Amino acid sequence: MGAFVGVDWGTTRLRAHLMDKEGAVVGTVETDDGLMAARPDGFAGALERAREKLDAPGLPVAMSGMVGSRQGWVEAPYADCPASFAAIADHAVAAPVNGADVLILAGVAQGRDGSVPADVMRGEETEIAGAMAALGVAEGVFVLPGTHTKWARVEDGRITGFRTFMTGDVFAALKGHTVLSAMMGEPTDWTAFGAGVRADPIDLGDAMAEFFSLRAEALLVGSNPDAAASRLSGRLIGAEISAALGAGEQPILVGSGAIRGAYERAFAALDRDIVPAPQDCAARGLALAARYWGWI
Amino acid sequence: MGAFVGVDWGTTRLRAHLMDKEGAVVGTVETDDGLMAARPDGFAGALERAREKLDAPGLPVAMSGMVGSRQGWVEAPYADCPASFAAIADHAVAAPVNGADVLILAGVAQGRDGSVPADVMRGEETEIAGAMAALGVAEGVFVLPGTHTKWARVEDGRITGFRTFMTGDVFAALKGHTVLSAMMGEPTDWTAFGAGVRADPIDLGDAMAEFFSLRAEALLVGSNPDAAASRLSGRLIGAEISAALGAGEQPILVGSGAIRGAYERAFAALDRDIVPAPQDCAARGLALAARYWGWI
Repeated sequence: MGAFVGVDWGTTRLRAHLMDKEGAVVGTVETDDGLMAARPDGFAGALERAREKLDAPGLPVAMSGMVGSRQGWVEAPYADCPASFAAIADHAVAAPVNGADVLILAGVAQGRDGSVPADVMRGEETEIAGAMAALGVAEGVFVLPGTHTKWARVEDGRITGFRTFMTGDVFAALKGHTVLSAMMGEPTDWTAFGAGVRADPIDLGDAMAEFFSLRAEALLVGSNPDAAASRLSGRLIGAEISAALGAGEQPILVGSGAIRGAYERAFAALDRDIVPAPQDCAARGLALAARYWGWI
Repeated sequence: MGAFVGVDWGTTRLRAHLMDKEGAVVGTVETDDGLMAARPDGFAGALERAREKLDAPGLPVAMSGMVGSRQGWVEAPYADCPASFAAIADHAVAAPVNGADVLILAGVAQGRDGSVPADVMRGEETEIAGAMAALGVAEGVFVLPGTHTKWARVEDGRITGFRTFMTGDVFAALKGHTVLSAMMGEPTDWTAFGAGVRADPIDLGDAMAEFFSLRAEALLVGSNPDAAASRLSGRLIGAEISAALGAGEQPILVGSGAIRGAYERAFAALDRDIVPAPQDCAARGLALAARYWGWI
């Protein structure tokens, strides 16, 4: 018996869960109605279709992710760091839908005043809350792989600071839109990926020469396109981890899918232990919001 | 009175000079018949049109640049480092044209044996030779700005090693094909460019977070698109210079156009002195080849 609907709505995907009074998932639909597909007047329709598929018309809806961005349905505010999940839930905004509550959780921001580098997240704050609940922790370093990977520090249950690394975005741009594009295949060669992951930091300037050298090597002695792409992907993710993770820190890995697997391999190549969070942290975080709002 | 034609033929432009017995330029035509426009069967036609415009039918032709690449007219070999200009001229290949000699100079390669990072150049070796002749030097650090900027070390008149930084290519990919694209204008704000140029090295991983922070700053407090693009361009060129140029070294700046101007500003922002080479070093190098081959 469903009590509410939890929706993780991102740039490319909509993932809607029918959830019960205990906060457990009892049904899920996933569609391509991401922000890039949905029109401003189409968010309500996309949500309605998802609720119908879940046989959950009229139930309240808790949403997180880019649906609350300026390009989304309704712009939700950002809670400033240090941000508790209560602040994130308190700053939720209502989507313009008749009937039951449809609320979009706030994102988290830092550096609005210039004191630290500016950064924003939408959706990851909910996953972090879900991971904390699942693991029973209130502090730690959380890594959330994606096109823009987030590294967040949590103390006393609050997100105190975070950094977004646009590693996947940089990789795709290098692979698809530079001189490297002619020689790059798909990053599916895990041996080459692991060889690319290195603990030593690399200077940005040196990296821009190292990248060209991949092209020159292909010209002079030949190279395997998939291995070349995999090595570059490993190199970038390794550089990110080296920059983000302090000595002795053990990060909590949150997320799912192929990108999570790549990070698992990168941490293994660096011989760094991680704490794996379950893959359904977004739903767990949405259940926390429903509980906070008294829906369950 | 023309004695030969010198052609600097790159990816996007063909620049042909009618040159006299002293090696001086007496006429120039520049067209869009770069490699990307010219078809494999069209190189001869493009060259013929340039020779006609110069009123120089039947004169021998010395060519350098990407016209000698695998995607060019005829693939010219690479001379290995340490490479003298005599070796570059000796390894020239003839283009399949009836009548007068039409020769394409060799490029320069390093790292074919894996002893140093692989790298290649085509065209810049000729500009370096021209710069050496113009300045009367046989050693130094030469910087040749471009989409792929070359930094070459010359000793005793030979190119002993070099590095290609794909800085301009990386900038264009970040500006045009990542999350930054929505907030980036044109890199025309020289104040912001200069502010972006910094001497301190930056780690590649940290850079991938810094780049995203530009986007977050635009969301949280707003930003000027041209200033943002200019600052990023300065940041990347500054990182390149910091990686490429040793303490106390004074580079010889070779090249022309807007990109040369950007590097001049970057060196000034870093308070680093340069030795400016004249802007016609390619023609000067082609004249050296003509002299080497006994054409003048």
